[in-house]
Amino acid sequence: MGLLNKTIAGIEKIDYLLSDKTQKRLDNLTKPQGSLGRLEELAKQVVEITRKDKPELKDKVIFTFAADHGVTEEGISAYPKEVTIQMVYNFIRGGAGINVLARQAGVKVVVADLGVAEQIQKSLPAGRQEKSKIENFVDKKIAFGTKNFAKGPAMTKDEAVRSIESGMEIFLAEFEKGIDIAGIGEMGIGNTASAGAISAVITGRPVSELTGRGTGIDDKTHSHKIEIIAKAIALNKPQAKDAIDVLSKVGGFEIGGLAGVVLAAASKRVPVVMDGFISTCAALLAYTIEPKVKDYLIASHCSVEKGHKVILEYLGLKPILDLSLRLGEGTGAALAMPVIEAGVKILNEMATFQDAGVSESI
Amino acid sequence: MGLLNKTIAGIEKIDYLLSDKTQKRLDNLTKPQGSLGRLEELAKQVVEITRKDKPELKDKVIFTFAADHGVTEEGISAYPKEVTIQMVYNFIRGGAGINVLARQAGVKVVVADLGVAEQIQKSLPAGRQEKSKIENFVDKKIAFGTKNFAKGPAMTKDEAVRSIESGMEIFLAEFEKGIDIAGIGEMGIGNTASAGAISAVITGRPVSELTGRGTGIDDKTHSHKIEIIAKAIALNKPQAKDAIDVLSKVGGFEIGGLAGVVLAAASKRVPVVMDGFISTCAALLAYTIEPKVKDYLIASHCSVEKGHKVILEYLGLKPILDLSLRLGEGTGAALAMPVIEAGVKILNEMATFQDAGVSESI
Repeated sequence: MGLLNKTIAGIEKIDYLLSDKTQKRLDNLTKPQGSLGRLEELAKQVVEITRKDKPELKDKVIFTFAADHGVTEEGISAYPKEVTIQMVYNFIRGGAGINVLARQAGVKVVVADLGVAEQIQKSLPAGRQEKSKIENFVDKKIAFGTKNFAKGPAMTKDEAVRSIESGMEIFLAEFEKGIDIAGIGEMGIGNTASAGAISAVITGRPVSELTGRGTGIDDKTHSHKIEIIAKAIALNKPQAKDAIDVLSKVGGFEIGGLAGVVLAAASKRVPVVMDGFISTCAALLAYTIEPKVKDYLIASHCSVEKGHKVILEYLGLKPILDLSLRLGEGTGAALAMPVIEAGVKILNEMATFQDAGVSESI
Repeated sequence: MGLLNKTIAGIEKIDYLLSDKTQKRLDNLTKPQGSLGRLEELAKQVVEITRKDKPELKDKVIFTFAADHGVTEEGISAYPKEVTIQMVYNFIRGGAGINVLARQAGVKVVVADLGVAEQIQKSLPAGRQEKSKIENFVDKKIAFGTKNFAKGPAMTKDEAVRSIESGMEIFLAEFEKGIDIAGIGEMGIGNTASAGAISAVITGRPVSELTGRGTGIDDKTHSHKIEIIAKAIALNKPQAKDAIDVLSKVGGFEIGGLAGVVLAAASKRVPVVMDGFISTCAALLAYTIEPKVKDYLIASHCSVEKGHKVILEYLGLKPILDLSLRLGEGTGAALAMPVIEAGVKILNEMATFQDAGVSESI
């Protein structure tokens, strides 16, 4: 618990006093006041978080964490669980959705194994192996997948803490190399079931409101999934206010890891862009551990996965994009980062009325 | 009318048959089917427009047209009309919102004077003059502002046609240099009044539904603006189905020019990204001239300016972003272009299930 407690202790409130000062600067730029709407809000939030007058979002990193889920034994997913490791290789080779979108946005992707059910081979299977990308892979495997939480706790409390601390370590190693804004994303067949359970417990809302179709299950499997999650909560009795308890009983290793990234990023005054339902659920765990992290969070988009909206409302966060995405991996974060950067560049680069010799409003 | 008629005759229907074929390719990429939502729709639309299997959106150009409006005499704007020319200089110097956002998105901005009330000096007033940017300025002045349409027609029919054809010429000159996707934006104090009048006439909806606060007027000025527009329509009697008539009676030169860009772009199979209320109103004029242009249009965002939503619904277009913007200049287009490009890159660059050795759904 050393790193966890130390990190939590290092999280400060963002500096709300910088908001008015920054709005005044925005109001002096050559545009009608407030006419860049959300971009102006994002610029202010980044200033409040970083406490820098002219923050730059040069180094952008998305953390895509993968792990497997024992609950897939219950037949609650549209894809076989082997897809988790197959997709990790796809991430490493640069062929997945997150790779394409991150390349376009100038974002580095750090892929980590927090608990995939098989060993990731450092020498990749045949394919377009590229050394530079393998360097962005981190092995922090806690176990070969969680246990089936329909039958008992997903992991031990020690494993829960280790998953959070592993995420912190991965973030802190990147922070040493330079990181101005972090994104979180994930891959793990079965992880919408875990996120549904975690968020139902913490928000107190019915499981049915938080359980969607994941990668695309039919009505029958969907009803079965809701039933499995409700039973698992009844069986394991996770305590809503104790995030470690919730994570250990119905969580996943990648979700714990991402909660660790959120906490570590907040402790270093780095804004965190969440992707969809599962990564927002990880942020919800981090918020349950330390509510001050909320102001460091930026919601990239509103997912089709129904529980996402519920958690965003619970956290009081307004998504930037609404593009009917439901892929995960950090894809929404990769799409939203340029919008956040745009807000910051407006603040840093636009001419003032005085500079440009433009008349102000009548 | 030579160029206008020739261009209209060159506009074909987009190739709807390519949609299914492209969706099949998207469904074979390593992601659950449809999980990239709007990105997949945008990729399909670009394929249908360009008729290219692997379209590239390398050369991106936003056309920011400026002009003045005689109706400002009626006191319907929050800013003095000198701001139009002052902002043109700001665009040329690279200090405006559109410059900042276009630089970030790798988009070229072509600024044109279609009817600013004063002469733009080719040698810029003191300031950060940069030769490369002046090269992106085009002088196509039709007149020194429109006449006050509260007292009679804004321009002659000949001027209306010339404004449209001038926009076409500006587009076609850029097309020769290379352009894969076009954006449209504008600057012109008083132009929300003109756009309100045009769109009320064409959509048949009440003026009050199409008249917003522009750059930020108070309640009293807002009521006055609605009254002026309603009176102007009663006085000039523009014919809803005759876009040239509507443009000449209550239009603006920059709006005509942008309608020309839309028509010319469609004739060259180039997608057009609209910005806010005024540029969407220009697209509405182009649609009234030739309804086939509709499928070439992409709505970048939904503006705070209330009439924008009405026109988008009339055209049946769904905006990509909703960021509470109301600046114009093409800023929304600059923010949305990377999202459209992301959709196209997904189609071109993602690995297939077979390539990546990933199992398909159960």
